[in-house]
Amino acid sequence: MITTPTTLAAATQGAAKPYKIIIDTDPGQDDAVAILLALASPEDVEVLGITAVAGNAPLPWTEKNARRVCELAGRPDVKVYAGCDRPMVRLLHTAPEVHGDTGLDGPVLPEPTMPLQAQHAVDFIIETVMREEPGTVTLCPLGPLTNVARALVKEPAISARLRQIVLMGGAQMEGGNSTPCAEFNIYVDPHAADIVFKSGVPIVMFPLDVTHQVLTARRHMDRIQAVGNRVAQATYEMLDFYQRYDEHKYGTDGGPLHDPCVIAWLIRPGIFEGKTVNVEIETGSPLTTGQTVIDRWNTTGRPRNATVMLKADSDAFFDLLVERLKRFG
Amino acid sequence: MITTPTTLAAATQGAAKPYKIIIDTDPGQDDAVAILLALASPEDVEVLGITAVAGNAPLPWTEKNARRVCELAGRPDVKVYAGCDRPMVRLLHTAPEVHGDTGLDGPVLPEPTMPLQAQHAVDFIIETVMREEPGTVTLCPLGPLTNVARALVKEPAISARLRQIVLMGGAQMEGGNSTPCAEFNIYVDPHAADIVFKSGVPIVMFPLDVTHQVLTARRHMDRIQAVGNRVAQATYEMLDFYQRYDEHKYGTDGGPLHDPCVIAWLIRPGIFEGKTVNVEIETGSPLTTGQTVIDRWNTTGRPRNATVMLKADSDAFFDLLVERLKRFG
Amino acid sequence: MITTPTTLAAATQGAAKPYKIIIDTDPGQDDAVAILLALASPEDVEVLGITAVAGNAPLPWTEKNARRVCELAGRPDVKVYAGCDRPMVRLLHTAPEVHGDTGLDGPVLPEPTMPLQAQHAVDFIIETVMREEPGTVTLCPLGPLTNVARALVKEPAISARLRQIVLMGGAQMEGGNSTPCAEFNIYVDPHAADIVFKSGVPIVMFPLDVTHQVLTARRHMDRIQAVGNRVAQATYEMLDFYQRYDEHKYGTDGGPLHDPCVIAWLIRPGIFEGKTVNVEIETGSPLTTGQTVIDRWNTTGRPRNATVMLKADSDAFFDLLVERLKRFG
Amino acid sequence: MITTPTTLAAATQGAAKPYKIIIDTDPGQDDAVAILLALASPEDVEVLGITAVAGNAPLPWTEKNARRVCELAGRPDVKVYAGCDRPMVRLLHTAPEVHGDTGLDGPVLPEPTMPLQAQHAVDFIIETVMREEPGTVTLCPLGPLTNVARALVKEPAISARLRQIVLMGGAQMEGGNSTPCAEFNIYVDPHAADIVFKSGVPIVMFPLDVTHQVLTARRHMDRIQAVGNRVAQATYEMLDFYQRYDEHKYGTDGGPLHDPCVIAWLIRPGIFEGKTVNVEIETGSPLTTGQTVIDRWNTTGRPRNATVMLKADSDAFFDLLVERLKRFG
Repeated sequence: MITTPTTLAAATQGAAKPYKIIIDTDPGQDDAVAILLALASPEDVEVLGITAVAGNAPLPWTEKNARRVCELAGRPDVKVYAGCDRPMVRLLHTAPEVHGDTGLDGPVLPEPTMPLQAQHAVDFIIETVMREEPGTVTLCPLGPLTNVARALVKEPAISARLRQIVLMGGAQMEGGNSTPCAEFNIYVDPHAADIVFKSGVPIVMFPLDVTHQVLTARRHMDRIQAVGNRVAQATYEMLDFYQRYDEHKYGTDGGPLHDPCVIAWLIRPGIFEGKTVNVEIETGSPLTTGQTVIDRWNTTGRPRNATVMLKADSDAFFDLLVERLKRFG
Repeated sequence: MITTPTTLAAATQGAAKPYKIIIDTDPGQDDAVAILLALASPEDVEVLGITAVAGNAPLPWTEKNARRVCELAGRPDVKVYAGCDRPMVRLLHTAPEVHGDTGLDGPVLPEPTMPLQAQHAVDFIIETVMREEPGTVTLCPLGPLTNVARALVKEPAISARLRQIVLMGGAQMEGGNSTPCAEFNIYVDPHAADIVFKSGVPIVMFPLDVTHQVLTARRHMDRIQAVGNRVAQATYEMLDFYQRYDEHKYGTDGGPLHDPCVIAWLIRPGIFEGKTVNVEIETGSPLTTGQTVIDRWNTTGRPRNATVMLKADSDAFFDLLVERLKRFG
Repeated sequence: MITTPTTLAAATQGAAKPYKIIIDTDPGQDDAVAILLALASPEDVEVLGITAVAGNAPLPWTEKNARRVCELAGRPDVKVYAGCDRPMVRLLHTAPEVHGDTGLDGPVLPEPTMPLQAQHAVDFIIETVMREEPGTVTLCPLGPLTNVARALVKEPAISARLRQIVLMGGAQMEGGNSTPCAEFNIYVDPHAADIVFKSGVPIVMFPLDVTHQVLTARRHMDRIQAVGNRVAQATYEMLDFYQRYDEHKYGTDGGPLHDPCVIAWLIRPGIFEGKTVNVEIETGSPLTTGQTVIDRWNTTGRPRNATVMLKADSDAFFDLLVERLKRFG
Repeated sequence: MITTPTTLAAATQGAAKPYKIIIDTDPGQDDAVAILLALASPEDVEVLGITAVAGNAPLPWTEKNARRVCELAGRPDVKVYAGCDRPMVRLLHTAPEVHGDTGLDGPVLPEPTMPLQAQHAVDFIIETVMREEPGTVTLCPLGPLTNVARALVKEPAISARLRQIVLMGGAQMEGGNSTPCAEFNIYVDPHAADIVFKSGVPIVMFPLDVTHQVLTARRHMDRIQAVGNRVAQATYEMLDFYQRYDEHKYGTDGGPLHDPCVIAWLIRPGIFEGKTVNVEIETGSPLTTGQTVIDRWNTTGRPRNATVMLKADSDAFFDLLVERLKRFG
């Protein structure tokens, strides 16, 4: 099961840290932690911009939450863009039962004062990828893939210029969290996911199978709280709210930290192990819509288009998270 | 079969001629005739702009062809906008076997010198509908519904402000022309069609069933040629090329003048008869994708969302066309 | 549209009248008329047996009705077999709104006294086809194709020995009568239909498009009543009940005599015109399940597996029916 | 994850050992081991009959293999019936790459001399279930579910009389072995599986997730060989051939003993742990056909129709198998 993801290896060669990234996100408490982890790691990733999309909550909340998190991190200079307010074809479906009505329930965070950029997120993605050196920009989608797919449709030339897409989404062994087959991010906009997985861009994918190994267990939560600064405290409060849904549903100690896996892998890839395989998206069947059909054993002979992460070292992940949270004053 | 299309009647009440229209198009010889018919009829329709989309030919051809036709009509002042260069989800599929490689094979028309507008067609549609009085703007899609659906997705508020959508597309009794079930415009972008037919905007639809009653028969072609001016001559040459495909395929005298039906109905609705029914778009099945499922007998009880035209008075149509072509100097 | 159905022509060559037929049926008033027409025409068709299937009514009614009709015709010697009491995969769906609860509402016909054969209809079909000379037996399915498909599945060797399958089912131009896309016989058991249309047996198909041209109009009903014998009177009463549903639904003068077309064609093929094309059955999509996808214009290049009848001479049909009804004493 | 399967518990109450079972099978080396385990355990299960179906190999091989295995066990008195030679709707797909061309490659077993019963397997199942006391007969399908579904369709009354159906089939976490989503038994005849899972009969299901925990590892194989009698030696040779495919594909030590899990659970249920949930079968989508959609977390609220086994104690399983193989002289 532990393999060298070859397409990925090729894509990574020659790229020097810090990697240039665009975080496409629908915060969401776990999205927030991912953003904080990225902003705390300038030697690893350079955040060119954050693009918001409708998903965990409607767009007016997710773009505002993105700005809230930047201000929490003391980074009102980060550029935040609003993107698509609904999926490409289906109607929007949000997840207030997980994230609360605001998408970021838990801590009391003030209204953001930093501005929202005027440009549409889709146009920002296109412009940035076309302007930067080919092979240098990594997209990090943490929500439904609407913005990314719309950018690929509007300007197909970006597919050859992107370094890679590292995304949270999908599920195989664990089953889905929106339906028995489908994970939320893919289920909300399966048509967008279909476009992304057929785009030819090297994809690294963090499905529920791996994110469910990164649980906010009591001992990890204690370490986060012990950091003691304001950002860590807000992180603790977000996760304390957020983990309730999964703890109740699955009976686990803690909830899964889905989205931060994407950033953690860019910083320390050794935390995770995966396999490069073919992944197709089901868009037609009422029973299985939104499923990521992962050909782990190469049964079909279809081309390998994604490196699917399957294993995480949870302790190493929280070591990294705690270490970086300490950097906030 | 002949009914009063009630939703349509309601939508039309109170609207005064000339109707404000946006023509969304992928010329295409029959698109060209539709544009000419509209530009020749200022007392009936006011063309706010023409938006091009990929369909019969790739976007670089269709936007250029739209401008060519405006110049042919002596109207370089018309604003032409380029829109989406591919369908929402599927890859682009064009029809060079019908329209030639340029989309407008037949007459030799010079390169256009009038400019293409800088604004994206989707943004032009949104801006125009939001600016004009509610209930006054009619969209006239003559190609795949990508631009229209994208506008509805980007700014859902336009659905309540549009007067109606009058489109060429779909098929029932005649079967499809792209597959046994699917007509070209819907087949190329079924997901866009699905969005449009679920939008709540009153729809008037001209399927193949009615457009195949409007054939460029020899006697009609003779009348067009006899008009004698430059526009009529170019029209004759376009249709002479265009009708070959259908004449060969169906063994008919002449080819079907699909798109001009849309404009003709706005000018003289009495030429056509239809029925207001439920129409759904198949997007899931490989066998029937792109089919317009028309519930003519209200078998399902689903809401009536479209007036489907089923009957045309072909002679009356060509009377109108010839009369208007004469207006060109 | 009028073509020589080549596969059919080949199948018919060398076969001498009377043709040996098995009528597979779910009576149903129109089924009853088909059976009467066959029993009145011994020089044209030899009825080897009648097999009942669930469809218009549950199996206990349809097998009993088959025997009722034989006794009405004065033919208690005909062998009637009961077959499948539900479709292959889907649950049974009947049509009491058309045929009444008994399947044969209208005349008062006594309980049958002739016996039901002990053998299962599927086994009778197999045994008969394997016993008779290859290329001599014609199956005439007038209801859902469950019995026929089950026979093809249980003994695939019959497909090469059957002369042809002449069936009532499907729809294209007219749309369906069970859903906007699907005709009742195919809709009830689309999986069975899929097996039959993929079996390789030459198929002649009478869809709604042609059966809706054979209406029990007032003038035809008058002629039936004027025949004056007991069978004609019962026929009149059956059709008088049966036509009400369609007259109300479509506003026509009379209801469509679907099933007798099958037998009439075996007697006088010139009454009908058709085209040999590819037909596929939709079994996957909720929206279009049960549709017969008819490739009238050979758009797909798929093999031609069925002769689809599209045109009927209604007067000639009723001439034949009245002529044959007179034969009953 | 460890739950009391409540519907199952109810079904089991009051049933006294030995349980009356019908083994429906397509041997297959692992089927053969399941049969041997059953025949060696008369205090636990009484084998009323063995019904063969097409699956791992065509029917002529599977019915012959069933008889071979009975003779190997010294039980030529067991009644073996041949059933369906192909799936309900789809064409037959076999697995020679796993089981060899005969379905039972490995040991040299003589041609069977015991007779095949004349009755069709489907009729035997119906007759037996209708004759035995209600709630006493357990069906044990080890192959595609064609025979079982056909029996349920032909005589729906058996669904209320069966004690339960304990089957090998399906997959969730492990992914499929025929496609990324579908396990072989379900993939071969998804329509039959759909009927079985909608039948209302209590189902216990052993998917790949649990059978992949019961591997023929070296140490287990050594114990089987050490038993020393003829049956154990043949078992060793069958498994030695059979395990090669999976060892090569998955890189495991040994191959999964799928089918014997069904019998082992009837003997010692404590070896396995499972959960009672809703399971639906995908029959429509080309990408996911044959998938068992398992709602482990009750996301959908659909009724719980199956106890899905998820955990096996592999050592306890092989303890049982070795213990029972010793009983053969």
